[in-house]
Amino acid sequence: MSGRVSEFTVPVRGQGMVEITSRVAALVTEADGEEGLCTIFIPHTSASLVIQENADPSAQDDLERWLARLVPEGDPLYRHTSEGPDDMPAHIKAALTATSLSVPVRAGRLLLGTWQGIFLWEHRHARGSRKVVVHIG
Amino acid sequence: MSGRVSEFTVPVRGQGMVEITSRVAALVTEADGEEGLCTIFIPHTSASLVIQENADPSAQDDLERWLARLVPEGDPLYRHTSEGPDDMPAHIKAALTATSLSVPVRAGRLLLGTWQGIFLWEHRHARGSRKVVVHIG
Amino acid sequence: MSGRVSEFTVPVRGQGMVEITSRVAALVTEADGEEGLCTIFIPHTSASLVIQENADPSAQDDLERWLARLVPEGDPLYRHTSEGPDDMPAHIKAALTATSLSVPVRAGRLLLGTWQGIFLWEHRHARGSRKVVVHIG
Repeated sequence: MSGRVSEFTVPVRGQGMVEITSRVAALVTEADGEEGLCTIFIPHTSASLVIQENADPSAQDDLERWLARLVPEGDPLYRHTSEGPDDMPAHIKAALTATSLSVPVRAGRLLLGTWQGIFLWEHRHARGSRKVVVHIG
Repeated sequence: MSGRVSEFTVPVRGQGMVEITSRVAALVTEADGEEGLCTIFIPHTSASLVIQENADPSAQDDLERWLARLVPEGDPLYRHTSEGPDDMPAHIKAALTATSLSVPVRAGRLLLGTWQGIFLWEHRHARGSRKVVVHIG
Repeated sequence: MSGRVSEFTVPVRGQGMVEITSRVAALVTEADGEEGLCTIFIPHTSASLVIQENADPSAQDDLERWLARLVPEGDPLYRHTSEGPDDMPAHIKAALTATSLSVPVRAGRLLLGTWQGIFLWEHRHARGSRKVVVHIG
């Protein structure tokens, strides 16, 4: 095995996307070497990861509301309701988006597109914090 | 290139999730080294991978039924029907979930969250077996 | 860090899937070593990646039309409309599919299943070209 594993925590204020690009980029800058791969992993089942447009916040907002409409709270289909009305929709949203993402690295820089940002996507209402694990290899 | 590639087969009894966490974890334990990355890949187009809650089976059951309702059999949209009514829904479900997943490793252990399990998600009705390929590097 | 990063461009003729398996496979063949991992990344937010059946084009066509029905243009929910009616649906489709995919490699060959192809999935109408970044390590 090779590479380096780091972790950081992300404060969340309920549902929504929190951009983590600069925190991941800082870990990549610290790592040594010319070319490699940066993998971001989220150890949660009711929050996820997404790479999306970071220029216009209305794109994130539309994405958030579209997914909330597709996976609404209070759906009579749900039997897993003991952890609150936002729990099962959060699991479904997490399953439809990413738990891990890999971005190639060159010259100490993530090779993201011009408009791409890496986001933690919180799917529950509660404020709190989430953990993100990063492997650079 | 580096790392080690292993394969195993998973018996499936029709649609549903089969937890494969312990089988992946055993491969990680065998591998040498302190920190690394474990990537799971499924070489099929009508089954997929998902990391989800493994504590309460009702969460998996709701996820299964929710996706079956979103992507029903018998949709008149489908023209690719020659392989049976469950084939095209299976391809769509696979496209909406994961074909590969990467989990960071430290001290011979997958850095999964407390409630996370790795599942093979079978989308067809037939019993049989599926192959899973694991890279540890 | 280790491995090798390459890029190529893919001409697109509006919405639809373009198979890129042979271009990725050629990079894998060039790379040295017995076992490893190939990661494909797309630096765009309105196109994505998918591994799907490459034998029968009707499967790709159904997948395309199914997703277009799930995420239609002209949905009154959208506020991010300044870049055209196909822009916000493209972001949503990209978020529901993959931005990165990893495929294990053995003996200079991608360990894809018999029927699997790697596709760039263009979600906008315009002709043009997209970039794909590949890490082999």
